[in-house]
Amino acid sequence: MQPTIDLNSDLGESFGAWSVGDDDAMFRVVTSANVACGFHAGDALTMARSAASAAREGVVLGAHPGYRDLAGFGRRALDTSPAEIAAELLVQLGALDSVARASGIRVRYVKAHGALYHRLAADAAAARLFVEAVAAYDPTLPVLGPPTSEIERATDAAGLRFAREAFVDRGYAADGSLVPRGEPGAVVDDPAAAADRALELVETGGITADDGSRVELAPDSLCLHGDTPGSVAIARAVRAALEGAGVAIEAFA
Amino acid sequence: MQPTIDLNSDLGESFGAWSVGDDDAMFRVVTSANVACGFHAGDALTMARSAASAAREGVVLGAHPGYRDLAGFGRRALDTSPAEIAAELLVQLGALDSVARASGIRVRYVKAHGALYHRLAADAAAARLFVEAVAAYDPTLPVLGPPTSEIERATDAAGLRFAREAFVDRGYAADGSLVPRGEPGAVVDDPAAAADRALELVETGGITADDGSRVELAPDSLCLHGDTPGSVAIARAVRAALEGAGVAIEAFA
Amino acid sequence: MQPTIDLNSDLGESFGAWSVGDDDAMFRVVTSANVACGFHAGDALTMARSAASAAREGVVLGAHPGYRDLAGFGRRALDTSPAEIAAELLVQLGALDSVARASGIRVRYVKAHGALYHRLAADAAAARLFVEAVAAYDPTLPVLGPPTSEIERATDAAGLRFAREAFVDRGYAADGSLVPRGEPGAVVDDPAAAADRALELVETGGITADDGSRVELAPDSLCLHGDTPGSVAIARAVRAALEGAGVAIEAFA
Amino acid sequence: MQPTIDLNSDLGESFGAWSVGDDDAMFRVVTSANVACGFHAGDALTMARSAASAAREGVVLGAHPGYRDLAGFGRRALDTSPAEIAAELLVQLGALDSVARASGIRVRYVKAHGALYHRLAADAAAARLFVEAVAAYDPTLPVLGPPTSEIERATDAAGLRFAREAFVDRGYAADGSLVPRGEPGAVVDDPAAAADRALELVETGGITADDGSRVELAPDSLCLHGDTPGSVAIARAVRAALEGAGVAIEAFA
Repeated sequence: MQPTIDLNSDLGESFGAWSVGDDDAMFRVVTSANVACGFHAGDALTMARSAASAAREGVVLGAHPGYRDLAGFGRRALDTSPAEIAAELLVQLGALDSVARASGIRVRYVKAHGALYHRLAADAAAARLFVEAVAAYDPTLPVLGPPTSEIERATDAAGLRFAREAFVDRGYAADGSLVPRGEPGAVVDDPAAAADRALELVETGGITADDGSRVELAPDSLCLHGDTPGSVAIARAVRAALEGAGVAIEAFA
Repeated sequence: MQPTIDLNSDLGESFGAWSVGDDDAMFRVVTSANVACGFHAGDALTMARSAASAAREGVVLGAHPGYRDLAGFGRRALDTSPAEIAAELLVQLGALDSVARASGIRVRYVKAHGALYHRLAADAAAARLFVEAVAAYDPTLPVLGPPTSEIERATDAAGLRFAREAFVDRGYAADGSLVPRGEPGAVVDDPAAAADRALELVETGGITADDGSRVELAPDSLCLHGDTPGSVAIARAVRAALEGAGVAIEAFA
Repeated sequence: MQPTIDLNSDLGESFGAWSVGDDDAMFRVVTSANVACGFHAGDALTMARSAASAAREGVVLGAHPGYRDLAGFGRRALDTSPAEIAAELLVQLGALDSVARASGIRVRYVKAHGALYHRLAADAAAARLFVEAVAAYDPTLPVLGPPTSEIERATDAAGLRFAREAFVDRGYAADGSLVPRGEPGAVVDDPAAAADRALELVETGGITADDGSRVELAPDSLCLHGDTPGSVAIARAVRAALEGAGVAIEAFA
Repeated sequence: MQPTIDLNSDLGESFGAWSVGDDDAMFRVVTSANVACGFHAGDALTMARSAASAAREGVVLGAHPGYRDLAGFGRRALDTSPAEIAAELLVQLGALDSVARASGIRVRYVKAHGALYHRLAADAAAARLFVEAVAAYDPTLPVLGPPTSEIERATDAAGLRFAREAFVDRGYAADGSLVPRGEPGAVVDDPAAAADRALELVETGGITADDGSRVELAPDSLCLHGDTPGSVAIARAVRAALEGAGVAIEAFA
C-alpha cells in the first residue's frame, strides 16, 4: 500500500499592512493550510485572501485559532480561562468558516496556534472545553495537534477524529517533546536534512531523538513552516523527496 | 387584522470587565436582539452570554456588526473600503452564529451598528458589498435598517428581505432623518411620550416630524435603546402600551 | 507624633464608551490615584480626565501600568518578557506623565496593576528591569507595592523609594499574602469592619491574619477599591474613621 | 552659503512579530527619524529599538503619532474629535519620549502620520488643538509637516517652529498637493530621477509640477520612504547626489 501523508503549514499570518511569509508559494506546496482567524494574526481581508488561495490551489482549509494577543502573535502564555478559550475558539472558527463561504469552501479542521497549542497539549480541562466547542460547531471536524497529548485524549473522548502532526524541521527529545529553541539540534534548517527527516517520519512512523533513541509519532501530517528564511526551500525539498519516494501527498481531512 | 410589530435593541455591548446596559432586563422586553460581534464591543464570553439569554428568553438573535473600533465603540466614521466592510461583516456574522450554536440557536438577521449603520444608509457601493456578503453567508437572512436608504435598496436588489426600523425615542425631521443629537427634540426620554410615539408608529405607519409634517416609515421593528439611564423604563412602557392597545409583539424574522 | 497614612485607589479605569467606578467620588476621598495608562484600561481622554481630576482635587497622580490586555483588564497572567515589561512601563509612564502636563501636574509615583502587580511581587528579574526603567525615567519616583516582595527588594536595590500598601477590604493569611478570592474571609465588604481594619493597620502597623496570628505590614498607604458595589461607602467610612482617630491623611509621595 | 537640508523617514513601523522596512539601512541614511508611537504601529520594544538606533547613528528622534488604528496602519480617515486627537498626541509623544530616555536621548520634533497628517493639513480646529498639545508638552519642539497647510498656520499661531517637508518620490500638482496614488506621475521609483528631484528641491526651493508649472515649497526636510521595494536605493541615491552637489545634510531640529 502506498504511504500517504498530509503537509500542513501556518498561513494567513499577515495583519493589515504587515505581511509575513510567502503564502503564495506555500499554498502550492501544502495540502492543508492552518489559517489565522484574527486573534493573533489575520485581519478579515487576509482571511478572505487565504480562503481564496485555498480554494484556487485545492488546499484544505483549517482554522488556526490562537490567544487574543496581536502584539505577541499568540506565542505568549496567557491565562485565559478554559470557558473563554472555548468561546474564543467558536468566534475564530465561525469567522473563518464564514469568510470561506465567499470562496465556495468551508473550514475542514482545527489546529490551535502557538501558546494555545502548547496549553491544549498539557491542560486537560482547557483541551476538553476546546474540543467540546469544536463538536458543538461541527462534530465532523477533525482536530490536528501533537501526538500523545491532552488535546489528543480530549478529542478521542469527544468522539472526534484526531490527526497527529510531526515537525520536519525541529529536533525531538526522547520523550517526544521538541528540543527547545536555542538548544543544539532544536532547528533543522538544511532542506536536504529536513527532507530526510520527512522520509524517516513517513516511512517509519517515528524519528530519531537527540539522544539517538527512537520516538514513535505515527504522523498523519507534517508541519512545514512558512515564515522563516529558507522555509519555502525546505517545504519544496520535503515535498519533492516524498514524491520521489512514492509517498502520496494527500490532505488528511 | 391585529397589528404586529417587532421590538429590537442593541445588546451584548459589554467588553471584558466593562459592562454596559441592563441586558437581563432588556432581553425580557424585546423580541429581537442585535448583538455586538467583537469589533466595536462584545468579547467572546459576552457573545456567548447574549446568545444564551436569547435562547432562554425566546428572543431572535441578530448580528450587529460594526467598524473595528473598540475605543470609539463603532460610533466614529472610519474609511474602511467596501471590500473590507464585506469581509469584516462575514467575520462578525460567522463569529456570532458560531457562538450561538453552543446555545442551540442561530443568527436570524443582520443589522449594522453605529457609524457603519449610517455609512450603509448612504453609501451604495458599501451597501451592495455588505448585502452580497450576507447573501453569500445565508440568503435567507433579512437585513434590518433604516427605511428609504441605500441599504434598503441594496437588500432589495440582492433579493434578500429588508426589515425597516423606526426609533421611539428619537425625533424625526421632515425628510425622515433623525434630528441630530444636541438639537431640540432629538431625544425623547419620557416613557409615556415614547410609548405614545410607538403607538403612532405602529397604528399609522409613520410619525409626526419636528416641523409638524408627517413622515411615512412603515416600520417592521421599533428600536429600543438599552444603554441609557431610564432606557429600561422606556422599553417597558413602550411594550406595555403596545400590548394594551392590542398590538402583537412578534419578531420580524 | 501624629500617625499619618496615604489612601490610594485604582482610578481612570474606563475605556472609550465603557465607564467603571465612581471616580468623581473616589477622587474626593483618596490622596493618591493610581491611573490606568492605556494598556489594560484608560484611553487618552480618560487619562486626561483623570489627570484633571487629580489636579482639581489635589490628589497625587500615580501611573498604574499593566499588561497589554484590554479584554482581560490586565488581570490575566501574560508571559511578557522582562525586557518588554520594562519597555511597556516606559510607554505607559511617559504617556500618563505627558497627558498630566496639560493639567499642570506630573506623575509622582508608580504602582503596577493586576497580574503585573503579582508578577513583580514574585519575579525578581522582571522586578529589577521594571524598577530600572522607572529609574531611567525619573529616579525620584517612588514605587508603591506589596511589602516584603521582589518589587520591594528591587526598588531598594536600585536606590529608589518603596512605599508599602495594605488592603483594608481583603483578608490576610499568616504569611502576609491575601486570602484568595472565593475563600472565606477573602473580602471585607462591611464599611465598619473595613474602617476597623484600617485603624488596626495604621495604629499597629499590621493586621490580624485569618488564623489569628499577626502580620506585620508597616503600610505607607491603604488601598481602597473604587470599582465594586459599596466601594465608595467603604472608602468614606475608612477615611472618616481614620480622621476621627486623629490620623493625618496625607499622600506618601 | 552652503545649502543644507534634512532627510527624514518614517521608521519604527514594525509591530510585534511583524516587521516592515529596512530600518537598519535607513537609520544610516537619514538625519531625522519619524518613529511610530504605538497607535498605528510600534510596540514598546520596537520603539525602544528605534530610539537606540537613533542614539547610535546620531539621528534626531521625532514622534510620529497616528490614529488608533493598527489594522489600517493609520492610513484610514477616522472621525476622532479634535480633543481626542490632542490627548492621543500627548499619549504618543510622551510614550516615545519616555522610551527614548533609556537610550539617553529625547524626542526633538513631531510629525503626524498617514490619515492624521492629511487631517491636520486641512482641519484648522484639529490642527490648533494638536499644536497646543505639543506646546503643552514642550514648546521648543518643532512640528514637521506639509507647506501651506492648516498645521503650518496653527504651528505659527502657537509660536512653535514649523518645518516644511517635501517628497522626493512623489509628483506634485500645480496647487502644491501630491498627485494621487494611482494617477500617472504619482510615484517616482527611479533612484536617479528621485535624486534629480531632491537636487531641484534643495537648489531651487521648489519643484516642477505635473503640468509643467512651478511649485514653491521651501523645504526644510525631504521625506524618504523606507517601506517600499527599492526605497533604500532611492534614499541612498538622494543622499549621495545631495552630498555630491555640496549640500550639507543636517537635521532641521
